[in-house]
Amino acid sequence: MAGLPKYVGLDVGGTTMKAAVVDDAGEASPSVVLPTEPHKGQEHGLATMAQAIREAIVAAGLTLKDIQAIGVATPGLMDIDAGLILDPPNLKPWRNVPVRDFVAKEFGLPTAFQNDANAAAFGEYWVGGGRGASSFVLFTLGTGIGGGIVIANKVLTGKHSHGGELGHLRIEMPDRGRLCGCGARGCLEAYASATAVVARAREEMAGSRGPTRLRGIAGRLGEAFAAKDVFDAAEAGDPLARKIVEDTGYYLALGACSAMAAVDPEVIVFGGGMADAGESFLNIIREYVGRYGLKFPASKVQIRGAQLGSDAGFIGAAGCARQLVMAG
Amino acid sequence: MAGLPKYVGLDVGGTTMKAAVVDDAGEASPSVVLPTEPHKGQEHGLATMAQAIREAIVAAGLTLKDIQAIGVATPGLMDIDAGLILDPPNLKPWRNVPVRDFVAKEFGLPTAFQNDANAAAFGEYWVGGGRGASSFVLFTLGTGIGGGIVIANKVLTGKHSHGGELGHLRIEMPDRGRLCGCGARGCLEAYASATAVVARAREEMAGSRGPTRLRGIAGRLGEAFAAKDVFDAAEAGDPLARKIVEDTGYYLALGACSAMAAVDPEVIVFGGGMADAGESFLNIIREYVGRYGLKFPASKVQIRGAQLGSDAGFIGAAGCARQLVMAG
Repeated sequence: MAGLPKYVGLDVGGTTMKAAVVDDAGEASPSVVLPTEPHKGQEHGLATMAQAIREAIVAAGLTLKDIQAIGVATPGLMDIDAGLILDPPNLKPWRNVPVRDFVAKEFGLPTAFQNDANAAAFGEYWVGGGRGASSFVLFTLGTGIGGGIVIANKVLTGKHSHGGELGHLRIEMPDRGRLCGCGARGCLEAYASATAVVARAREEMAGSRGPTRLRGIAGRLGEAFAAKDVFDAAEAGDPLARKIVEDTGYYLALGACSAMAAVDPEVIVFGGGMADAGESFLNIIREYVGRYGLKFPASKVQIRGAQLGSDAGFIGAAGCARQLVMAG
Repeated sequence: MAGLPKYVGLDVGGTTMKAAVVDDAGEASPSVVLPTEPHKGQEHGLATMAQAIREAIVAAGLTLKDIQAIGVATPGLMDIDAGLILDPPNLKPWRNVPVRDFVAKEFGLPTAFQNDANAAAFGEYWVGGGRGASSFVLFTLGTGIGGGIVIANKVLTGKHSHGGELGHLRIEMPDRGRLCGCGARGCLEAYASATAVVARAREEMAGSRGPTRLRGIAGRLGEAFAAKDVFDAAEAGDPLARKIVEDTGYYLALGACSAMAAVDPEVIVFGGGMADAGESFLNIIREYVGRYGLKFPASKVQIRGAQLGSDAGFIGAAGCARQLVMAG
């Protein structure tokens, strides 16, 4: 990566933060991971961010003067335009933290600030599953469902920093829908996040008498029983697990159809742990998109898996930093 | 409007086409309406478009040399980037009609081409209910539900010219949803278009024994019974009609919540006949958006009525023409 301009990307989560130097081609140096420890307060948090950025530069065998710009991604609530973390539920008790200005001042470099899911989307768009797309939608399947939209090379941040909150696309009426963490019933996230897959699996086991190895697995694992176990059992042929995976693909397709009705993207990418299930899972989503989407765009849209894994956030944050410099 | 640059906007529909000169401030001269007569073939259609444009210039007391550019809006299917009408169901038997190039050549002027619902959205954004918004979503309630999205001064056309097809946001599961014209069950349009309001009203009358003046109205009007009659009866206090109007606002709010999850706009505007019901109807939508939308954006988003009526299409088409010249 010698010679190419270089950026630092930092992805701040509720538990850890991850940073790395990323070059102009999207190639990442070894990343560093530090604990976020939000309970220690936001001054500590900002100091840890600065430390992560410094360590990432060292890990790349570089010094600060080799770096063109920095990108920081954080979870919401936030005010993206103002460069502020507001009061995200998983960074308690942080409140109104001026992340962008702090980092810019600390390092004397142009600093981009973005929502973590949007940054992941920008990363996948830049050098991952959405590379080269003129318009792009990412669904990230984790504890919740995150999302991000990139159109004409720009992240769709929204007026209130809530663009691409695709876990809250509605797929069911509120009177009968599953309860979402946001308080409403019927959001996609309440059906197809990893958490929801586990919840649905437990419900299916309770409601069905048919043989399934899921019961033994769930009993053995207890609280550790995870969406991956359901997907593994489905892959091994377990009928109840297959039904749960099929339903998950169906729900995600319904969400994808609404994203298509709004944005009509060239490419939709699914990332996060479940998407590691690969083509067999993507094929379920593709089939239901073909069945329930508007015919013309549904026949054209490309549905793919993510390529950057959990590096998407810091790669995308670095990509936003790069865009800032190039636009400037 | 003397002195300001001037554009012609033309809005082609299945029955009529409407054109007018629009000045740089969005002020329209008297419009002309000609029959589209699609059955007479696309050569006839193109000739009629040219005639409508010429008559609009005459109606404004101008000549061609006073015009800077022309904008044409047509219903889909279409290829917006290529300037082509493909094979829209309400312009049969037209097929692959090179509208943009024909108009550009016929008049020797820069010509913009846009989907009719997108053009209406651009019109409302430019000088109507969305004026000044940094991001904007229009729902047009008619026979179907059309939509359009404007972000950072640009129409979101989508990769396959299907951006802003907001009638096909999904609000209900396909296994139990109402059947939409697109063939899928559960699209917003199947619940809250004017056609769907009438269908639901007839179902409610069949299923309810309570007194309602709707029965008499529907019986008297027969096939002419329309959504407006339901809204009028609701305004006059009829309980069944009020329920139908309330449900319609609820369904539209669910669609708005999904549009917000994707785009997080500053302003959402509802247009078309039903939206003439005004603030009382908008208040129903606002209440349900507050209940089912993500709290932060739902507390901020502005929900308004359209201001341009059926002129939105040609005004927006002219606005697209203006944008073409300004960008050039």
